[in-house]
Order: sequence, then structure tokens, then C-alpha cells
Amino acid sequence: VLAADGVARGQPVLDGVVALLDLEQLEVNLFRGVSPPGLPTRVFGGQVASQALVAAGRTVPVEREVHSLHAYFIRAGDPKIPIVYQVERIRDAGWLGARRRAAGRDSGPGVAAGHRAARRGVRHRQRALGEGAEAEPALRHRARLAPRRTGLTDGPIQVWMRADCTLPEDKLLRVCMLTYASDLTLLNSVIARHDIHVPDERIQRASLDHAMWFHRPFRADEWLLYECCSPTASGSRGLAQGRFFSRDGRLVATAVQEGLVRITSHV
Amino acid sequence: VLAADGVARGQPVLDGVVALLDLEQLEVNLFRGVSPPGLPTRVFGGQVASQALVAAGRTVPVEREVHSLHAYFIRAGDPKIPIVYQVERIRDAGWLGARRRAAGRDSGPGVAAGHRAARRGVRHRQRALGEGAEAEPALRHRARLAPRRTGLTDGPIQVWMRADCTLPEDKLLRVCMLTYASDLTLLNSVIARHDIHVPDERIQRASLDHAMWFHRPFRADEWLLYECCSPTASGSRGLAQGRFFSRDGRLVATAVQEGLVRITSHV
Repeated sequence: VLAADGVARGQPVLDGVVALLDLEQLEVNLFRGVSPPGLPTRVFGGQVASQALVAAGRTVPVEREVHSLHAYFIRAGDPKIPIVYQVERIRDAGWLGARRRAAGRDSGPGVAAGHRAARRGVRHRQRALGEGAEAEPALRHRARLAPRRTGLTDGPIQVWMRADCTLPEDKLLRVCMLTYASDLTLLNSVIARHDIHVPDERIQRASLDHAMWFHRPFRADEWLLYECCSPTASGSRGLAQGRFFSRDGRLVATAVQEGLVRITSHV
Repeated sequence: VLAADGVARGQPVLDGVVALLDLEQLEVNLFRGVSPPGLPTRVFGGQVASQALVAAGRTVPVEREVHSLHAYFIRAGDPKIPIVYQVERIRDAGWLGARRRAAGRDSGPGVAAGHRAARRGVRHRQRALGEGAEAEPALRHRARLAPRRTGLTDGPIQVWMRADCTLPEDKLLRVCMLTYASDLTLLNSVIARHDIHVPDERIQRASLDHAMWFHRPFRADEWLLYECCSPTASGSRGLAQGRFFSRDGRLVATAVQEGLVRITSHV
């Protein structure tokens, strides 16, 4: 499943992510997820956010749509230890909270997601600013968990994404996949604004939080333009904002993340 | 304290907000706040977010700085009933969660805020885009809890703010004041993009969540430009993004909120 450019792709890879998001239900509000084998020393933040969203979404009727999620990453997760997600039913009208518990220790707030019925409202949207963005194949994940350095730029980093193989027809899964994917390149936008002359291994990255808002339905097999930029960084903390646009320029989802970017003195 | 334009200002008004943010400590991790008298039927979201942040901030040493907050507004609060904030010490390194409990019923997740020591990192910033924004005096709050309609525009709504009277020298208070203020005009940016021909009373607004990131220290008596825009709205949900800039163009804080904007058929 490794193409010429060294990036894993194809049905087995996509199936791997789907399997990752297929949590084991332990009790009514209790779910367990595992991390993929062969990972680095820490669990990928996008995995935790998307698994927590799966857990929360499993406890509401399928027709309920996720509005948003807010996640804090409190501690680094150990990939060898399964993660237990405990869903707290905050409000029957559709508000949910999920917390992750790893190895019996409470690791703090995870995700809250909600739904309300749409009534007569307002509608507008922002078109994608970028043109001629790099066309890249879908959901580069396990092989790309350690984000690649990108070129120095003040502009947004643009990546095209889509599920390049068959995906189950599942609205919740699509949203969770997008959450997973959103964390892959977001912090790169902070680093891209700096001309850092140290080996990539000395650039320490950690997601501190992750917020997402899902504005419109989208198809898993359509191309989405993911545009990431960083408006500010100070004292090793950088803010990164990401936007998913459909091919016809509709804003599908927004992501915001604060990340820790540090230069370490040793590899 | 009402100026010619009908907006309350002056030391008593500012003192009122300071009093609002001076919570009563019931126990080590338990705080109680009240709503100002003469309010509408619902508690103002900015009040809940800022009071929760006060509660969380009171449980850490004063030198600790707030990184960010994420808040969900699950239910409308009754201004007549005091709000109890329960702080959960998630991690001693500075991560905190605060939940609000009103009238004995758990109202869901409130706020989490964190601190990490700054090491060698990266630093960049975005300059304010706007020029010639409307200069307005500080923290218009209680008299302005019901946001005013603004003109139809695709551009950002810009408001200058500052504490126009004396404020106690308290870093936490400044950040909480900014949180409070950030909720005043944010949703207006959603409405400003639409030419809605109904009386203002028929436009129903509700904040669904509120996220803030604090990038840099700022002074309470310096002018801050608050720039709000809405990139998208669909099915009565609108996303609003706000940015506080100092006069020299440094990005001080970022706010993101999803709001419900609906046209009701009756007033």
C-alpha cells in the first residue's frame, strides 16, 4: 500500500482508519478504542478527537448530526494502552460530552457535540480563497502522522483530500474521518511561517486543543480543499486555523487548534 | 451613567462588571456567581464564560496565565438563580475544567483553561486588516446585552474597546473582561451579512458555544480593535470569528462562536 512517493494509500489503508473508528462498546455509555500498531511514542490527537466523536455519536439516533466538537489534549496518550471513552448524556435534546479515560486515569474533558433541529435561519458562506492548490491524494494518515515540513510561507497551506477508496455510507463516520484528517496538517501552518534551521526531528509539536465546526454535509469521495493558516504564534504557542472547502467553493467545516511548537536542543 | 447616546458607561458601570466577576467562594473548588439585576429572561453567555474562567483561574497561582477556553452553552440560564461553578482539577500542571451548575441541575461542560511554561518557541502575528474603524468607548455591557443591529456588510464588524475607567491591576480579571466583551458583538457579524426585513425583536439569537485563545498580554486601558466576521451560516447556525488587536496591530486574542440565528414568526 506504499505508492512511489512513500505514502500509504489504497483500500487497506482506508479500511485501517475505518477500523480505528469502529469502537468496541463496553457498556451503554462506555466505548474502547485502540491505536494503530507501529505508531510513535504518543497517540495522535486526531485519533483521540475522532474516536471520542464516534463514542458520542453512537449514543444518539443516526439522523442526528454533529454540530461541533471541542477537545483538550491534557496528557500524551500511550499507543499501547487502549483508550476508554465515557459518554456523559448532558441533555437529551442532543448535547453530549465524551471524556477519555486511559488506563484507569481520568484524562480530562474530551469532546462535546450537539444537534438542534434546523428551522428558518440564515445562510451564507465563504468561498475558497486559494487557486491552483497542490492536488494530493486522500487521507494520508498512518504513514504521515509525523507531519512533513512544508515550505516557508505566509499564505495558507493547501491540501486536497478525499477518500480514494470505498467508504461505508455513514454520516457520522464521514465527520469523524474529517476530524481525523483535520489534525494531520494543521500545525504545519505554524511551522511554515518560520525559517527554522534545525533538523525536523528537533521541532517538537504537540496539539493543545482541537475545535471543529461542521457547517454542511459533504461526500466522502468528493475532493475537499483543506486550507490551513496560522495567524499568530508567541512563546512557543501557535494558533492554527483550517477550512475544508468543497470543489464548488462551499465552506464545509472549520478547525481551530492551538499547538505547542518548540525547538529542542537534542534529537 | 447613561451618556447622550443611551449607552451606560463610567466607573459605576465598570465596577458593576468587576463585581459580576468577583465570585463568592463556597468551597475549595466551588464558586457562586450572580447575574446583574434588570436583565432579560436569559443569562448572557459572555457572563457564564467569564465567570467560569474566574472560578478556574482562582484555583491556580496568580502567575499562571490562561491559554484558552472552550465553553458550551447547553441550556438557557435564569438570571434570578445564582450560578454555581465547580472547578475540576484535571492536571496539576495547570489544566483546569470548570462546569456550571445552576439550581442543582448539572448544565454540562463549561470551561477548560490551561497554562504551560514558555520555552524557546516560535512567534509571529497577524496585523489588523481594518483601517478607519468606528472608535467607540469601552466595554458597553449591561446596557448593550441585546446586540444592536448593524448595517448589512460582507466585511468584518469593527469596534474599538477599552476599559474607560480604573480597573484593578489583575491579569485574570483582564482576560475575563475580554471574554465577557467578546460575546457582545460576535453574533452581530452573522446578522450583518443578511438583509433581514423583520423587526429586530423577531431575530432570535443564541450562542451555542464560545472558544477563546489568548495570545499576548494586553493592558486594560489600551484601545483594542475587535474585528468580527462570519465566514458561513446555514440552517440557522452561523459561525462567527472575532479578533482583538492592540493599537500597534498585534493579535491579542481570538474568539470563535457558533450561534443560532432564527427569524421568529411572532415577537
